[in-house]
Amino acid sequence: MSYTAPLKDMLFNIEHLARIDQVAALPGFEDAGLETAQAVLEECAKLNEGVIAPLNFEGDKNPSFFKDGQVTTTPGFKEAFRQYAEGGWQGLQHPVDFGGQGLPKTIGAACGEILNSANMSFALCPLLTDGAIEALLTAGSDQLKATYLEKLVSGQWTGTMNLTEPQAGSDLAAVRSRAEPQPDGTYKVFGTKIFITYGEHDMAENIVHLVLARVTGAPEGVKGISLFVVPKFLVNADGTLGARNDVHCVSIEHKMGIKASPTAVLQYGDHGGAIGYLVGEENRGLEYMFIMMNAARYAVGVQGISVSERAYQKAVQYAKDRVQSRPVDGSFTTAAPIIHHADVKRMLMTMRAATEGCRAMASVAAAAYDAAHHHPDAEVRKQNATFYEFLVPLVKGYSTEMSLEVTSLGVQVHGGMGFIEETGAAQYYRDAKILTIYEGTTAIQANDLVGRKTARDGGTSAKAIAAQIEKTEAELKARGSANALAVAKRLGAARQAFVDVVEFIAANTKSNPNAAFAGSVPYLLLAGNLMAGWQLARALLVAEDLSAKGQDVPFMQAKITTARFYADHILSRAPGVRDAIVDGAEAVTALPAEAF
Amino acid sequence: MSYTAPLKDMLFNIEHLARIDQVAALPGFEDAGLETAQAVLEECAKLNEGVIAPLNFEGDKNPSFFKDGQVTTTPGFKEAFRQYAEGGWQGLQHPVDFGGQGLPKTIGAACGEILNSANMSFALCPLLTDGAIEALLTAGSDQLKATYLEKLVSGQWTGTMNLTEPQAGSDLAAVRSRAEPQPDGTYKVFGTKIFITYGEHDMAENIVHLVLARVTGAPEGVKGISLFVVPKFLVNADGTLGARNDVHCVSIEHKMGIKASPTAVLQYGDHGGAIGYLVGEENRGLEYMFIMMNAARYAVGVQGISVSERAYQKAVQYAKDRVQSRPVDGSFTTAAPIIHHADVKRMLMTMRAATEGCRAMASVAAAAYDAAHHHPDAEVRKQNATFYEFLVPLVKGYSTEMSLEVTSLGVQVHGGMGFIEETGAAQYYRDAKILTIYEGTTAIQANDLVGRKTARDGGTSAKAIAAQIEKTEAELKARGSANALAVAKRLGAARQAFVDVVEFIAANTKSNPNAAFAGSVPYLLLAGNLMAGWQLARALLVAEDLSAKGQDVPFMQAKITTARFYADHILSRAPGVRDAIVDGAEAVTALPAEAF
Repeated sequence: MSYTAPLKDMLFNIEHLARIDQVAALPGFEDAGLETAQAVLEECAKLNEGVIAPLNFEGDKNPSFFKDGQVTTTPGFKEAFRQYAEGGWQGLQHPVDFGGQGLPKTIGAACGEILNSANMSFALCPLLTDGAIEALLTAGSDQLKATYLEKLVSGQWTGTMNLTEPQAGSDLAAVRSRAEPQPDGTYKVFGTKIFITYGEHDMAENIVHLVLARVTGAPEGVKGISLFVVPKFLVNADGTLGARNDVHCVSIEHKMGIKASPTAVLQYGDHGGAIGYLVGEENRGLEYMFIMMNAARYAVGVQGISVSERAYQKAVQYAKDRVQSRPVDGSFTTAAPIIHHADVKRMLMTMRAATEGCRAMASVAAAAYDAAHHHPDAEVRKQNATFYEFLVPLVKGYSTEMSLEVTSLGVQVHGGMGFIEETGAAQYYRDAKILTIYEGTTAIQANDLVGRKTARDGGTSAKAIAAQIEKTEAELKARGSANALAVAKRLGAARQAFVDVVEFIAANTKSNPNAAFAGSVPYLLLAGNLMAGWQLARALLVAEDLSAKGQDVPFMQAKITTARFYADHILSRAPGVRDAIVDGAEAVTALPAEAF
Repeated sequence: MSYTAPLKDMLFNIEHLARIDQVAALPGFEDAGLETAQAVLEECAKLNEGVIAPLNFEGDKNPSFFKDGQVTTTPGFKEAFRQYAEGGWQGLQHPVDFGGQGLPKTIGAACGEILNSANMSFALCPLLTDGAIEALLTAGSDQLKATYLEKLVSGQWTGTMNLTEPQAGSDLAAVRSRAEPQPDGTYKVFGTKIFITYGEHDMAENIVHLVLARVTGAPEGVKGISLFVVPKFLVNADGTLGARNDVHCVSIEHKMGIKASPTAVLQYGDHGGAIGYLVGEENRGLEYMFIMMNAARYAVGVQGISVSERAYQKAVQYAKDRVQSRPVDGSFTTAAPIIHHADVKRMLMTMRAATEGCRAMASVAAAAYDAAHHHPDAEVRKQNATFYEFLVPLVKGYSTEMSLEVTSLGVQVHGGMGFIEETGAAQYYRDAKILTIYEGTTAIQANDLVGRKTARDGGTSAKAIAAQIEKTEAELKARGSANALAVAKRLGAARQAFVDVVEFIAANTKSNPNAAFAGSVPYLLLAGNLMAGWQLARALLVAEDLSAKGQDVPFMQAKITTARFYADHILSRAPGVRDAIVDGAEAVTALPAEAF
């Protein structure tokens, strides 16, 4: 099998770190306990391992292609998507009222990881549809909800996010697409949108585009942007499909990776205007779009974990199969499978620790999301929302940046064979590189972390998390085992580095913004590293307990070693990053542009 | 222009760090002073910028292809190679006796960087030919030299290195190809060789394969391997080409990068035996092959610098052209070219500092090579040889590992456009990944560093270098400028980390080899980081002097800032790496294979 979902690790996180028992105590999630999680994840694994994962390599060899305005996806995708939709997977986390299953993110995020490990290119279609559903749920009128939500939740139709234009990438203030109000309350939309994932395809009957555009006469900049629903096919009053709308795919991109996922250039209004329906109020489009984007950012972070896991599994398999040289410790008298060589183990452990660390962080973030939305106590909701919002740029930025390192090591473990496309390891390396770019580059995530998440409250939220981490350090010290003490040492050093940086950022963001933003991405990496390392430290405490009780000792021992490895080899990077940020800001911006 | 050779930086290194005046004082290099260096580099830049660089993207789109045993290279390659050969570039560093120009490596290495920046796929053909020339010069009989050297040095014929077999990658002890002695003193060679760069192509009349094989009855393992010349076409007594030899290309690989460079599977002896000529003595093949490999390892390190420089130039160009958002420091009232954003500068500075640091290290290593081979005093030759040999795994390992980071940042600077193949940034990311693998993976380089270069002499050579670095620290402190002091601080911390690791490696390699080799790659990265940072620190001292004298102040100021950036942002990683090695060995090998 090319991919086996890491259910044991996921359920360990869900049970012991995300605390599914607490999630199941929230109103509306009464049935979402550990047993439900296990049953759902097992079903999810079955579909993905059996049907969707085998299409991943095929999608790379035989990508979506464009001809005469139509996109034909990789053979097998359409049928796989039918099975995905029929299984109810699109609706997993969406409201029961619109046909969804209403499960918590704590479970849904793990399913998302499985789907993306199986096939990142395929998974992008549901990922974008989730975003469209979120936006409509939050800001759509009852009529828009009634017309679109059920079909999107069932996977009968799919959704897209249309932000980027040639001159407007990270800077949405530069959006030029325009919308002219019509007497009947609709709008005519005109403009060109680029980089539209699944902007055109053959897997669903209709495509529901969520489009940013400026209403005639709207203010300049971000305050004049509105959000529209523009369906590929208009929808009749009875819900059947009507006329083809004036939105057309004019080409798709030739990309380094995720080749099966069609990245469309969409032309709106070349034949009189695409009919669009306003979502919410005029000029509040960016606010609504951020709802979609925040969900999508978390999901892209999970993609980083997914591709890391898949690359890890492939590298482990190769390292167990490939026989080469005698290990230096004399444990073999002949050539051995390369997994017995110390440096191959170092590479595999790095891949494993990074993946498990990011997974643990994402799982805890998901539980915070659930509490932020469902806890009866407003204060608890607020605390959890703050924590979740702090974590989103880290889940997105850190998990994806680490996926570059992990997939690179994945190729490296394969040696020369890794560079040969037929092996398959190279695909993960190529696929992963989009993750630090789309849904906001790492720098954009870091801006969010610096500006909205750190400087705005003077570092209060960040320091509150640091205080939580100190408690874990105290627990580790009280435990007193060699591994716990070693992890406590690195965790303490990383936490102190984080606090130093938080203070530096809080002090400089207004008075010396160049200094703060010169360190923004390093700060994000330090913070993400710390959060992942913290969760693995918590995991170590649990695993030591359970191991002592004789519960699944090999798994618990592996978890302990992985946490220890993470602390010694990855968390240990944190103090150096602090030095680079705090002492190194000046050299970042010292050179004038013409000196480059 | 798509690439401009960084002549100013190269000549700065050659003059002030590699000290070309001292190289030109060596017997045989009397004419190889700074003026010669400048003239040669300018000519080299002209050919590469004008003719070879424009073929790089074309080679990626339209790679070498295989049909019926023949390989057709990218359109334009054959003519470009003709110009390269006619210009005398293949013979640049080779002896005048065989038609070469006999220039020092101090100059030749810079030309190698230019060629590889222009077109890494193209440059691999001369790179391998250089290795074949080295092997024949060192170990070939007079007859072999007379038959092959002049044609190789002129570029009329090209060379290859045939080591790898399906079961013998990093472990050459597993080589199975065999050679049967014939009554006329020749051998018949049989076997399959894979991953043979330019093993078949249409750019030269003949291909001279240097092939590892076992003579019938030879001992097992590495002590039974001999080296043979197996030409594609046999050579008549008068030097004209004779019959086609029994070596045939059966396929070429479909690779992630360096697509224009054909990577051949060669079949020897399927039609009665390929005629081969023994190089040197039987069973000493590995020793000779190491001569080729050491030259090639240095050259691959330079490839890392080359692809980094090319990626940097492309990213700078894009960052100057692409307009997006207002910088946080209020320096623009409208959207600005993205080079004005702090994080874009951080990325560009990281790319620049890594590239310049590795270039400085390689330049100094080249000068040590020249002294090691040409100095009249045997003791000085030995010192320089020791220094050079310590640096080779660092030039190879560190420059190439950094090229992964640099080319990844190169894509990142481009945002979404970086992921589109037409942009060209993705090619460098894909191309670079081979560099940490071929001519010995980073782990193989690290084994060399740990075993032969560190543990064997108990760390003496390593510590002698550390003592040199301490002298530079003292100079920086005596200088007393803010930049010099900041660099001294990071250099001292990195040097101390290096010494700690050297002691750990020396203490553990025999008694606890798993602990030493668990840290081998991190040790290589730390040592390479330190050497590059040290050379930039030396550069800073020179640049401050010259800037004070009013000599090319903008260049000198940029060099000072780059050295400072390197120290704060890259050298600052070193202490964390020390911690990972010294405290983290246990967790690397703790998990049994079945736990993965």
